[in-house]
Amino acid sequence: MTRGFSDEEFTGRVARCQAKMASIDVSALLVCTEPEVRYFTGFHTPFWQSPTRPWFVVVPANGKPIAVIPSIGGPSMSATWIDDVRTWSAPQPADDGISLLTDCLREVAGAEGRVGLPMGPETHVRMPLNDLDQLRTNIGGFVDATDVVRSLRMVKSEAEIEKHSTICSIVSDAFDALPSIISIGMTEREAFAAFRAEILKCGADDVPYLVGASGPGGIGDIIRQPSDRRISQGDLLIFDTGSTHDGYFSDFDRNFAFSSAPQDAIDAYSAVWDATEAGLEACRPGATTTEVFGAMNRVLEQNGSLGNDVGRMGHGLGMQVTEWPSHTSKDETVIEENMVLTLEPGLNWAPGKAMVHEENLVVRSSGPELLSRRATAELPII
Amino acid sequence: MTRGFSDEEFTGRVARCQAKMASIDVSALLVCTEPEVRYFTGFHTPFWQSPTRPWFVVVPANGKPIAVIPSIGGPSMSATWIDDVRTWSAPQPADDGISLLTDCLREVAGAEGRVGLPMGPETHVRMPLNDLDQLRTNIGGFVDATDVVRSLRMVKSEAEIEKHSTICSIVSDAFDALPSIISIGMTEREAFAAFRAEILKCGADDVPYLVGASGPGGIGDIIRQPSDRRISQGDLLIFDTGSTHDGYFSDFDRNFAFSSAPQDAIDAYSAVWDATEAGLEACRPGATTTEVFGAMNRVLEQNGSLGNDVGRMGHGLGMQVTEWPSHTSKDETVIEENMVLTLEPGLNWAPGKAMVHEENLVVRSSGPELLSRRATAELPII
Repeated sequence: MTRGFSDEEFTGRVARCQAKMASIDVSALLVCTEPEVRYFTGFHTPFWQSPTRPWFVVVPANGKPIAVIPSIGGPSMSATWIDDVRTWSAPQPADDGISLLTDCLREVAGAEGRVGLPMGPETHVRMPLNDLDQLRTNIGGFVDATDVVRSLRMVKSEAEIEKHSTICSIVSDAFDALPSIISIGMTEREAFAAFRAEILKCGADDVPYLVGASGPGGIGDIIRQPSDRRISQGDLLIFDTGSTHDGYFSDFDRNFAFSSAPQDAIDAYSAVWDATEAGLEACRPGATTTEVFGAMNRVLEQNGSLGNDVGRMGHGLGMQVTEWPSHTSKDETVIEENMVLTLEPGLNWAPGKAMVHEENLVVRSSGPELLSRRATAELPII
Repeated sequence: MTRGFSDEEFTGRVARCQAKMASIDVSALLVCTEPEVRYFTGFHTPFWQSPTRPWFVVVPANGKPIAVIPSIGGPSMSATWIDDVRTWSAPQPADDGISLLTDCLREVAGAEGRVGLPMGPETHVRMPLNDLDQLRTNIGGFVDATDVVRSLRMVKSEAEIEKHSTICSIVSDAFDALPSIISIGMTEREAFAAFRAEILKCGADDVPYLVGASGPGGIGDIIRQPSDRRISQGDLLIFDTGSTHDGYFSDFDRNFAFSSAPQDAIDAYSAVWDATEAGLEACRPGATTTEVFGAMNRVLEQNGSLGNDVGRMGHGLGMQVTEWPSHTSKDETVIEENMVLTLEPGLNWAPGKAMVHEENLVVRSSGPELLSRRATAELPII
């Protein structure tokens, strides 16, 4: 399990980025969210939990990125492959890095150069809006560079895929152990704690995302936090976790029944499992996310789906638990080799009864290669 | 350990919010980040890890807040005290809730009413900038409402303080156990994993923030992730964690030496411990954060501090690991009863050698009440 990345990984990322920047006539790219700063620099810290300080990275048309960051991050950033680290003592509300960043962008982009910033779907600008407005005035506006970072991040390197593979294997181990650690009579909260501890014991760095629910014969709400409800005979239980290894996520769920399950639930499980098979069949380089969605959706409709609330049937996976693209009826993203994706077909089999299934994969030239250990074809009964 | 809050907690929050909104002539308040949506609704899920979908809550001048959210959150949001839950099927990049939100804001604010949005320090707008620009055009701009949410969230209710107290007690237990679970020869990574597991075993829901480092006779970078470095005789070790109970954070650190410590490090530890005493003495209703900073800083300067990179000496604590205000030389926030704060004096005692100490407290009418179990006055040696 190698940690971090080689300098070559970063030089490759930046070279590809600069080619894409040139294609939209952008002389500097500004990023300011955790995954994007990490993507270009390797700077990796949970310090982003604190909303107090903004962090900026500027990718020039040529050469290494420049970090414009609070002084508290200076030593950590200087330990990465980045050479040019410019700091200010933050928090400093009157000018929290804005003049330092303005100077950097002017220097990098030149008087006439355009500055790119991700402004589209799944992005946001992590700085106070007042500061953003000031910055926009200072540099004369931004060009939307969403497609630059989107197209870069959607296709993973072998080193990134290795990290995904590691965490998916760890979480598969934890799910395999689940029948021996969760039992009737435990509260949801106890079950969550036991499962979180098991994932960590199996080797995950962290479990930033863990949701689930239990319910008699079915579950309505699949993004819930645990309650003090006790797991009982005849319950269904779903756990869905996004766990991490070295900053890369898994994201898959598993469903279980206790003692017995109604035939409708067993059938719903089979439907989402079969839909996943259809998704795996469809998920090849050159196909679109919309075709993958269609393949899964047909199976669900054939099995009497009442639709679902999720809004899509899987997505990209990476440094965030969900990334571009989405398997929807309109997404139309062309699937490429080395994309890491989830398949997540879901259906409501009765009002208030949802069944969602999820697997993780990497797209290879020959088709999908599973990263999660495939769920059993039939609803497991504990 | 009661989970969640009573409806009265939420009606109180909203009534105070509406009074503050009236004082700045705002007819609707828009919030879109996790802590603010949770503050007004009780909606609590790690689903925010996913950057794909925006979530909105509108606080009207009168009556309950309105949720404008992706349909995947419909069941969970409907289970809160909120009645008016408006959903759309997301992701839908062409119109990801913007027309639904525009209609809601127009309805709530009326033709002439002003709409507030937090735009100031420590805030950001969690939606794509293109969508934000569209929304601004639709509704004719926003009024900065940072002070509305800042002044509300800085002062905690007894129910919130109870959650802070619980998690601070849990993490104090875990730190007390640390000498028996961490030993010379372990790698930093093993030590992190053991400490994280201990915090969870002691009863924390999650450990979203854990940083630390070890080093021979001192440590330079205190926001680091663990390495494969082995802890050795004569090392100093710092752990700093923001752990959670029911969505509320602790945030304090502890320093340890192994076998022995240089006198300079022992003295630096005493200096930050003494500075904390001075901060505790100064931290009373009516004092300012700048006075608290000054009290701590004087002790550090008297002890030969070379300054530090942190940029402040403590901050607010709440649903986020750091919140307003900051103890700095310029902050000047007046401290009020029931603020939950950290004191975090730090100094560099030699180039590349930092010592930072942190405690958590709630401000009472009579002065500070510690939430973390006070660190020992002398550097503990394991």
